[in-house]
Parts: sequence; C-alpha cells; structure tokens
Amino acid sequence: MITARRTEEVRRTRSRIVNQTIGFVPTMGFLHEGHLSLIRRAKQDCGFVVVSIFVNPLQFGAGEDYDTYPRNEKNDLNLAQEAGADLVFLPGPDEMYPKPMSSSIRVEKGTDILCGASRPGHFDGVVAVVTKLFNIVQPDFAYFGQKDAQQAAIIETMVQDYHIPVTIVTSPTVREPDGLAKSSRNVNLTAEERKKAPAVYRSLEAAVDQMLSGEDVKDVLAVCSSRIAAETGGQVDYVELCTWPELKRAGQVKAGEPLLLACAVRFSKVRLIDNIIFTA
Amino acid sequence: MITARRTEEVRRTRSRIVNQTIGFVPTMGFLHEGHLSLIRRAKQDCGFVVVSIFVNPLQFGAGEDYDTYPRNEKNDLNLAQEAGADLVFLPGPDEMYPKPMSSSIRVEKGTDILCGASRPGHFDGVVAVVTKLFNIVQPDFAYFGQKDAQQAAIIETMVQDYHIPVTIVTSPTVREPDGLAKSSRNVNLTAEERKKAPAVYRSLEAAVDQMLSGEDVKDVLAVCSSRIAAETGGQVDYVELCTWPELKRAGQVKAGEPLLLACAVRFSKVRLIDNIIFTA
Repeated sequence: MITARRTEEVRRTRSRIVNQTIGFVPTMGFLHEGHLSLIRRAKQDCGFVVVSIFVNPLQFGAGEDYDTYPRNEKNDLNLAQEAGADLVFLPGPDEMYPKPMSSSIRVEKGTDILCGASRPGHFDGVVAVVTKLFNIVQPDFAYFGQKDAQQAAIIETMVQDYHIPVTIVTSPTVREPDGLAKSSRNVNLTAEERKKAPAVYRSLEAAVDQMLSGEDVKDVLAVCSSRIAAETGGQVDYVELCTWPELKRAGQVKAGEPLLLACAVRFSKVRLIDNIIFTA
Repeated sequence: MITARRTEEVRRTRSRIVNQTIGFVPTMGFLHEGHLSLIRRAKQDCGFVVVSIFVNPLQFGAGEDYDTYPRNEKNDLNLAQEAGADLVFLPGPDEMYPKPMSSSIRVEKGTDILCGASRPGHFDGVVAVVTKLFNIVQPDFAYFGQKDAQQAAIIETMVQDYHIPVTIVTSPTVREPDGLAKSSRNVNLTAEERKKAPAVYRSLEAAVDQMLSGEDVKDVLAVCSSRIAAETGGQVDYVELCTWPELKRAGQVKAGEPLLLACAVRFSKVRLIDNIIFTA
C-alpha cells in the first residue's frame, strides 16, 4: 500500500493506472467498520482503491468539533491496508488549502433541511473538499455511507450538476450490536451517553413503524423527538422526514415514494446523526 | 474530425485516448482568427484537440445579447477542421443543463471589477460551464484568449482552488489590421460603428504610454474613457487598471508589477471588450 501526503504523489500514481477502474473512499479518518465496509466494497468493484483521510476544516462551523474530532493515523493505515486500500492519501490542511479559496460552491437545493439547516455552510465545505479530492484522485467510483445520507444525496446532485465523471455508490450504515450507528465521533460520548445512545436508532425504527401503519407524520416526528430526548438525555437538533433522494420535506407517507427519516442529537461533547430510508 | 452533440459521445472518444495529451478550446462558436489561433496552438502542443461550441445561456444576463449572439455552425466546423480540431463538441442547452442546477459556483475574488462588476453573475455562469466542459472533455491543456483576460484569470484561479488537473494556456489577442480585437460580436456593429471601433485599442495603447511615462493613473483612465466615448460614439462601461493576474484595482504603476488595462464599450447592438497587459 502506498501512502501519499502530497497531491503530486497521488497524481503520479494515478497517471500510471490505465487499465484498472479506480475506487475512492473519502474519509475523515479514525476508521471504523463503516469505512472499512466501503473500502472492501470498493475493492470488490475496482482494480485500484484510494482512501483519503482528511479532517476538512471547511466543513466545520464555529464552535463545532474540529479540534476534538478523533484522529489515529497509524491505526487508520493498518485498517485501510487490511481492508484492501492500494493508496492512502493523507494531505494536511496546507496541501488542500494552500491559499484562501477565491470561489465557493453553494449548494442551494437540499440544504434547507436536516444538517443543512442546523450546520449552515457545512455542505458547501463538503462539496468543496470532495470536488478537490475528485480532481486529485480522478476515480471512476466513489463510496459514501448512508449514515451521511444528506451528504450522499448532495454529492450525487453535484456530480450531475457538473457532469463529473464519477459514479457515486452509497452503502448501508454499519451499526454496533446494540444498533448505534458506527461513527468516529462515538468515542466522544461519555460512558453514560454511550449506554443510552442506541435509543436514537430504536426511536427512528419505532417512528418508521408508526408511519407505515398510518399514523400522522407530524405526530410521529414529535413523539420520536421527545422519546430520543428522554431516553438519551441528548438535545434533539432535528427529527425530520423528507423525500429521498430529493430532500424535500415530506408531510405524509405515500406508497412507493422513498423517504428519509433522519435525526441529529447533541450530547455533551458530540453531535450524532442517524437515519432510515424506507418506502411504504 | 469527429463531431459530437452528446456528452456520452465525447466520453466514449475520450476514453480511447490514452497516450496522447488532450488540448481543449472552449468557444461560443462563430469562430474567428482568435479562436483558430488557439486551436492551432493546441494542435502544436497536444496530440488530440477538442473544440466545444456552445453559447452558454448561464453567462448572459437579462437584456444581454444571448439571442443575437452570432451563430454559424457549418462554417465553424469547416474552420475548426482546417485549424486542426480532432473533435468538435456541439451540445445543446438541454445537454449542458438537463435540469436546473442545484448548486452554483460563486467566484468571490476578482469579480468586483471590470466585467464582473458590470455583468453580475456572468463569471458564475462562465465557471459553471467551464467546469462542466472540463469534466466532460477531461483535457490536459485548455486554451483561452487574452481578450477575455478576466475570464482567463478567474478560470486559472478556479483550477487552483479545486485542484483541477488542467493546465490553462492564455494566448495573445488576435486583431484586425486596424487594431480592433477579433470578436464574434464584431458582426453586430453597424458599418459606422465598425469604422470607429479601432479607437478603443488606440486609446488603450495611448493610455499605457501615458502611464509608462509617469502620468497619474486616475487622470489617464479618465482621459482614455472620454477619448473612447468621443472617438467611437459608444458608451464606456469601464476603463480600469488592475493587477495581473490578481485583478485588484491598481492606483499606480509600479516597476515590475504586471498590470491589466481593460475596457468595455457599449455600441448600439453590442458590447465589446479589449485590454492590454503590460509591465513598467
């Protein structure tokens, strides 16, 4: 496995790969089973797999957890190699942002709800770094986790908007045995919070069941939100239902229409998200 | 020479080119000697040359000349072939904008002056279509004319911002024997305006001489503007001096600092631009 810290090293390696498809798994590191499942999937699909590890400052707002976002480079490299990565790109902030950006990509559709509403500018930072990484790696396929469903939908839209020659593949969320969605941020839960956190997913599952059985969407969302707050002790940022992958707020469940039920919950040191995509 | 109207046709051809560098000349068609010099230059540098012809609605503001922008596809194809194009891409608006864009690239630096100030949103439209075209053609080199100096500088900045794997080459403005910068729009001058239009470049040349001989920049710009108005009968949009390629307004001429003197002039049916890049 090659490790590269500089864009030029990636480009050099990339230019030698002609007859293999290239799979790309962009990550912020502190790899867990969710990332590894994406790398393994990429390795199944593609001849050459690139993983990037970069905690992107541009997608963190003021007061968010950029500084406390967990990092463990050495362990990440071992895990990535075991999972099948051929090249790991570990740029520093100076490599990705050698000077202030002169332009910005503003994502206008699909960002007025969910994390787009509660983290203003977050997705502009995400698409900026993903655009940079796509241009550096030039993959054929790029892999994203469904846990970040809004991110995956927005990147798919960006790919269509700009005719980017990359196929986006979204893979299912990987969960702990108790249902908690795997996340690098889970290590920043207190022991007490960790015990209670599985109630997030349990509550979402219950809400989906209620909606499928015909209960009023607004009522179900309110109950779900209260339940998450009560059972986890966290502060609910949002519990919302929207169309998938268009990300328009949905007021009712229509047969055959894919829907995304998503939530974000603030704990003492960390904010977690989770979601379920379902179709009635 | 191949002609393609669909993105997929370009991608198919592109995917077969492995051991040749690809040069790209994006145009809005109605090709003149300026475009042809770019195509010839591309053919000198690269094994395979792609020319695009697309009048991009996104870069025209309300009331601008999108509808009257001159078009002559058949003649363009002949000229492009003679100049050395290997593939001409002629997408329709539906091909480039199959649905409304969900995001926009906002160019924030270098757009508060010159055409950026007098054509709000113009460069956002330019970078959107250039990004799309770069992603479709995936060239190694892309060629732009210095007549659109601000455009070239902004695209170079965008390439740096997003690590786009394309080298931007800017070529000198090609002029009519009387000094008028070649432009597809020149055909929309009246006979009378056409006779007077060379005064634009003459006035810019005189202004550069005056600045190089130490005259006050502000005075020179004012005189230049009045002279263009008087000698052409046109309405001066701007005559401005800025640093090159940073595009910051310059109040004085410093030895060794490249400067761009640029202007835009409105005639009865068309707005023309011209510029000179010089260093004291």
